[in-house]
Order: sequence, then structure tokens, then C-alpha cells
Amino acid sequence: MNSKTRSERLVVIGGCAAGMSAASKAKRMNKNLQVIALEKTPHVSYSACGIPYYVADLVRDARDLIAVTPEEFRDQRGIEVLIRHEVVDIHPVKKTVTAIQLDSGKEIGLDYDKLVIAVGGVPKKPELPGMNAKNVFTLQTLQDGLHIRKYIDEQRPKRTAIIGGGYIAMEMTEAFRQRFLEVSVIQKRDQILPDFEPEIAEKVAAELTRNEVKIFTASAATALEASGGGLAKNVIFADGRQLSVDLVLVSTGLAPNTKLAEMAGVRVGSTAAIVVDWKMQTNVSNIYAAGDCVEVKHLVSGKPDYIPLGPTANKQGRVAGENIGGGTAMFKGVVGTMVFKTFDLEVAKNGLNVAEAQRWGFDADKVTITENSKAGYYPGVKSITVTVIWDKRSRRLLGAQMVGQEGASKRIDVFATALTNKMTLDEMANLDVSYAPPFAPVWDPVLVAVNAARGKR
Amino acid sequence: MNSKTRSERLVVIGGCAAGMSAASKAKRMNKNLQVIALEKTPHVSYSACGIPYYVADLVRDARDLIAVTPEEFRDQRGIEVLIRHEVVDIHPVKKTVTAIQLDSGKEIGLDYDKLVIAVGGVPKKPELPGMNAKNVFTLQTLQDGLHIRKYIDEQRPKRTAIIGGGYIAMEMTEAFRQRFLEVSVIQKRDQILPDFEPEIAEKVAAELTRNEVKIFTASAATALEASGGGLAKNVIFADGRQLSVDLVLVSTGLAPNTKLAEMAGVRVGSTAAIVVDWKMQTNVSNIYAAGDCVEVKHLVSGKPDYIPLGPTANKQGRVAGENIGGGTAMFKGVVGTMVFKTFDLEVAKNGLNVAEAQRWGFDADKVTITENSKAGYYPGVKSITVTVIWDKRSRRLLGAQMVGQEGASKRIDVFATALTNKMTLDEMANLDVSYAPPFAPVWDPVLVAVNAARGKR
Repeated sequence: MNSKTRSERLVVIGGCAAGMSAASKAKRMNKNLQVIALEKTPHVSYSACGIPYYVADLVRDARDLIAVTPEEFRDQRGIEVLIRHEVVDIHPVKKTVTAIQLDSGKEIGLDYDKLVIAVGGVPKKPELPGMNAKNVFTLQTLQDGLHIRKYIDEQRPKRTAIIGGGYIAMEMTEAFRQRFLEVSVIQKRDQILPDFEPEIAEKVAAELTRNEVKIFTASAATALEASGGGLAKNVIFADGRQLSVDLVLVSTGLAPNTKLAEMAGVRVGSTAAIVVDWKMQTNVSNIYAAGDCVEVKHLVSGKPDYIPLGPTANKQGRVAGENIGGGTAMFKGVVGTMVFKTFDLEVAKNGLNVAEAQRWGFDADKVTITENSKAGYYPGVKSITVTVIWDKRSRRLLGAQMVGQEGASKRIDVFATALTNKMTLDEMANLDVSYAPPFAPVWDPVLVAVNAARGKR
Repeated sequence: MNSKTRSERLVVIGGCAAGMSAASKAKRMNKNLQVIALEKTPHVSYSACGIPYYVADLVRDARDLIAVTPEEFRDQRGIEVLIRHEVVDIHPVKKTVTAIQLDSGKEIGLDYDKLVIAVGGVPKKPELPGMNAKNVFTLQTLQDGLHIRKYIDEQRPKRTAIIGGGYIAMEMTEAFRQRFLEVSVIQKRDQILPDFEPEIAEKVAAELTRNEVKIFTASAATALEASGGGLAKNVIFADGRQLSVDLVLVSTGLAPNTKLAEMAGVRVGSTAAIVVDWKMQTNVSNIYAAGDCVEVKHLVSGKPDYIPLGPTANKQGRVAGENIGGGTAMFKGVVGTMVFKTFDLEVAKNGLNVAEAQRWGFDADKVTITENSKAGYYPGVKSITVTVIWDKRSRRLLGAQMVGQEGASKRIDVFATALTNKMTLDEMANLDVSYAPPFAPVWDPVLVAVNAARGKR
């Protein structure tokens, strides 16, 4: 890699959604740019969000989760991908990075003109005795998914416990049940899905119970008791209760991975994630960052937030790439939209929940309605529950949450668009949303919820 | 009906969506209001949009389409409903209406303090020889639906022709095929769904063909040739071709019913429909109008338009009722959102098509993309085609159209909300719409289309 005669070079650290989006977009914008991506694991450009479906065996082959292979990046996109290369240092003055070839142990140096840090997050792991047992897993990378599925296929565990009650826990609960495993969900807080209003979380809890999942709320695991063979055999709770397990999944959230960035003088914010501007530039010249390692502006609160999600990583990567490639693009923030499926339910939210809204100084109120997902007389009608949260002073919409057997996943996007535009309830009251008997009642659940909010005194 | 001692009285002319919404909302707002609704047909408060599913026998009993019966209006809501009462005159100075009791032939007079005209539209009927044959139908009221289904059940027609190629024709095509009837669609213009871009209309045409429907485009029917028994037996085309039929459905659109209103001095606009303000008031004091007889402001063109659809009628009726009942509500307009199902397709649109946009002076361009409806690796993935139309000068979104086997019906609502907020393509590029593998690809089709539009030079 002779740097003397070469054209401008972009080095990307991290080969998942944000990194490879940045690499691809920059190269598409500027064919003369030399682009090298370094990835610690053996896999790049895969759908991390698809892993639960691979564990469930709904997706048979893990290769189906890979959008583009390293060979395809080289041959079809002119991008060099170095897998199993861990970057250990960034030298922003010399504009070089130092990486270790994990297979050989050799150290290499690479000059860059532009650098993208897209190293993602690291799973939060409570510090409990027994956490390092072989049958205790976290789920972030494709490798994690391969390990879990292999363990299920080969070791045939029967009883699983999931520590944590967020959306990945909910997806993995379904995945484990699809493999006919017993599942217990262990949640420290007094409800699963603590980011959701109780009205919504309760419906999800009922769906889990209907699918024979045991839920332990307000239950802190204090240790994983090991068997002779070095495997965790019991989850020990604070109150002394025990739960026998053959496999434990720890799903207690993600923290931004900022170690490298901080070594290079890149600023992290109040959320502990990397601070970037609208162009995805950090405070250090020529260093961009994107994906699960950066903080975002929450467009409802107006404050920095840490909401690591795949679509955001893809968008931020593309924006970084467009700017590096000579274009102009901006990523202004998110409204916190997320959706997941667990068993027969679609569960979605965006904006702020009541507690968050109050924390940010809003005079928050909420209302919850249940309505048909389509015309009541149309075969197969289901029900859908919608919670709307608003500010009583300005009457501005602050958030929405939904759960139902159909129609929640994309209806939440009406609220996403409304939140982006800072619409009031009154501006939304007669929104011209679509209607036909197979798809919605004549008053769509979105409008029913908004009008219930408007009518609340 | 002694008018001397009574409280204030609202008279509603027309008992379908707009009329009964107005009646119900006004009564809810003001319990002391006396509310009387007059309806020409035997039915009030039914889902006109559900009629195709009744004809298809997906909805077994027509009573399932009725939301509230006249008895329920009286007993549960305190609203008097007089069915089979046709209003024949309005006297705005005396503030009375004259109605005919259709069963007795008797004339009655009713005082009003507030009046709502919600008489809907009348089906357009081309003036062809043979149009009055017994086996030639239009579809607007529940009675029309009952007649068509009865004719199918009892006369067992085999070959049907639908004159017209709009969305109701598409719904009825599916309904007739579900009854195992042969269907020919006859369309004067050179494509079915002339309000849609050809890219979208072609996909619907292919779906019809796949379901053994014959499509005659650029084909004007000039006469319906009768048999001896007074039934239409042949459709005769301008070029001399003939098509043998046992049943003809004429579905060539709706015209606003303004006869009564005009007699009372109520102003109609350039669209030939009644002009109302944001409160649904006409130019005549104390007379409101709502539903398929009024024109609406199209929020994209900023111009009056005539777009008769159920949700609009419901909203306008409610707004009229809220204002009559002492509240304040406004109906500011529509963005032309509509969706329908035909066979396995969801078809949706809103905003302006290219021709309309050009007519209103926009420098319109469009782009069409096809994308997965969910993650490519997720079982059951379908494709969805999206057309985005925008103004090249301002880069403002002007319209969107979609077709696909799943996910079109509610995705169009993102565009509805964006059009309402007059968003530009750039403001939409990174919209925080929902993602999870069972529901969307990581770049939702909406964003893929918007970004394809952004990238078009």
C-alpha cells in the first residue's frame, strides 16, 4: 500500500451497516477514491437485525443475512475489505491507523485522508458471578448469532433465560420458542419493555404468557451459579429464588464503543457516545463517525440521545459517505421510531414516552384507544391499541406507541412524519390517511387516537 | 312537530356518512339540540365502501355493513331518523324544508335552525341506448348493492361487463370473479386507472389478466343492445365490435348532487360541487354541507377539487356537527389519498399525478422504484412499486403512488403526512420510518423512492 502515488484514500473502521454504507456511498460518489474497510470479525455487511430469525431457523442459512461479501465489495464496488483486522490506534496528526491482523498477529499501518469510525456498540453486561460461562451469550454480531444457534443445535438446551426485557429480548423470546425451548424473561424493572407505557407493555406480556413464556419482573439476577462443567446452571435472584437454566442470553442493552475514538481525541457527549455534526464529522479533522457509536439528536426533545438502530446506522453511513465523496448530505436526527415483532404482535413506538417527556420539561398527557385494524365487517379484522402522548401547553404531538396483530408496524410512520414536522393534535385531526375496508376502518386508529387526545379535558 | 316550544333544531338531509356523522357529533356536543335526519332510501349509516365485499359474498349479511340503525339512532343517540323521506325543497328565508314521505306520498314541512345538506353524489351514466335495461346497474347506495347481489343470486348471470376502469371498477372486478363470473372491463381511455401513472396501472392490469379478466382499453361502448326480454345482451363498441353480456355495471364516476342546494341559493364552485368554508358552512346562513356533494381544497394544488371519498365525508360531517353543536372545528382539505384492493394487490395514491401537476403549473418529474416489502431473507417477502412525483424547482413532494401485494395501503400515509406538511424530497430523505425484518427492508421503499428522486438529474 504505497501512499506516495495513490489517489485520496478513505479508511473505514467497522464493516457493518454504517461503515459499509459510508464506504459504498463515498466510492459511488467519487470513483477515484481508494476505499479500505477494516473489520475485526469475519463478517461484513450483514443484517444484525436478522439474527433472531436465523436463531429461530426461519432463515436457514446465515449467508442469507449477508448483503454483500468482501469479495463482492472488491470485485463489484472496488472497495477493499480486510476482515479479522482490528484497529488498535488512530493517529490523527499523521493521519494513520494501526491495525492487527488477527490471524497472523502482525501489525499494519494505513495512511488515510478521510477516516470513518463505525465501530458500533458493545453489549452491556451486568457484572455477575458466572457471566463468563460458555452457555451465557450476548447477541450483537453475526458471530454471536452463529454461536447461539450452534449451541442450540449441538447441545440441545431445554431451559433458557433471557436477562433483559427490551425489544431484542422480545424477538429472541419468540426465536427460542420457535426452537421449542422453554423461556424465562428476567427484568429488573417492574415491567417488560420499560420504554413503553404500561398499557402497551401489558399486552406484550400477555402475548408472551399465552406463548408459555415465564416473565419475572422486578427481579434482579445476582449471580449465575455454575455446574461442575463450567456451565451456568442456575440464575440466582436477589431474594434468593433460583431458576434452573441450560442457556442464558444477556440482553441488557448496548453501550457506544468509543475507546478508539477517545484515544484519537474525538469528543464524546453527555450520552457517552461520539458527538458528530449534521455531516457526520467529529471534532477531529477528517474523522467522521456513524452508527451505534455516535449520539443522535432526538428531534422531539431537541436533545442528544443514544438510540442505536440499524436504519439510523445506514442513513448516517450514507450521509458520511456522500460528504466524503464530494457531495453534501445532512443527517439531522431521529424521532426514535422502532418496531419489533414478537409472536403474533407488532409493537411500535416513537417520540417520547410520558416519563421522558416530563424529564424534558413537557406537560405531558396521554390517551390509549383500541380500534379495529380494518373495517369491522371485513374478514380477519384484528384490534390495534394506540397510545398518543402530547404536550398540554402547545398541544404538540410528543410520541406514539402501538401494539396489534396487524397494522402497527407501518402506521407508526404517520406519527414519525408528524413528529418530524412538529405537528399539533389539531393539525393531525383530519389527516388524509388511507381507507379501504380491507386495510383500515373509516376512522383509522391513528385518527381515533389523535381525536381522543384532542377531546381529553 | 310543534315548533313553538321546542329547543333548537338541526335538520340533516341525507343519512349516509357525512349526514349521520354531523347529526351524531352535533347531538354529542349539545344534548339539548333536536336532531332530525331525512333519508330517501331505506338505509342510513352504512358503509358504502363495503358494498363490493357484500356482492362478493365475503360479507354475508348486508346488515353487517350498517353501523347504526334508525332505531339505534333514536334510542341510543336521541336522533330522529326518517327513512324514505325525500327532501324536495329548502326555504332558507323561512328556514323550512319540504319532504315527501315516499311510502304515503304525503308532503311534510319541517322547520330548522341549522341545516346540513349531505345528499352525496349521483353516479355518472353515459347516455347510451339500452342503459335502462334491468340488467344494467350502477353502484352507489346499499340498495344498489342489494339489487346487484340479488340479480346474481337469482338470475345467475355468467358474463359481466364493467364500463369504467376506476377504483370501484377494480373492486367490483374482484367481487364478480369471487362469484365465478366472467368479467370484461371496458375503459374509454388508453389505460385502466387513468388517474394513476402507467407504471402503476400496468401492474394492476397484469393482475387482472392473471385473474382472467378481459380488459378493453381505448374502447368506447356506444350502445347496449337489448334482447327480446328487455335485457342488455350485447355491448356495442364504436368500432363495431360486440361483447355478449348477462350483466353490465356502469362505474364511470360520481357527480355532486347539488339540485336541492342550488334551488336554495347555495353556491356551487368550479368543480360543480357545493362551496363550503373551513367550518363546512355554505354561503347561505345556517346551511352547512358535507360529503360527496361538496368540493374540497386539494392541499397540494391549493385549488378546489372534487374527490368524493368516505373518510372525507365522515370528517366533514363531524366538523359540521362540531360547529353546529357549539364547538369549533375546521376541515382544511385533503391530499387526495385513496387506496383499494383488487385481487392480491394493494393500490394506493395521493397528491397529484404528473399530468395534474403540470396542469397546476408545477415543473413535475417522477421516478419509479421496486423494492422488497420486508427484509429480503424474511419468509414471504413481496415486492412493492413506488412512484414519487415532485416539483423540480422547489423539490417539493407532489404525489406518490404504490402497488404491491402487501405494505402499500398504510405506507401511502407517510406521503399523506409529508404532503400535508409540504415536505421537500431532501427533508424526507432520512425520515425515521420503522424497520424490522418482518415489516420492511432497512431502507424502506418510501425512502428508496424519495432518494431515487433526489438522485435524479
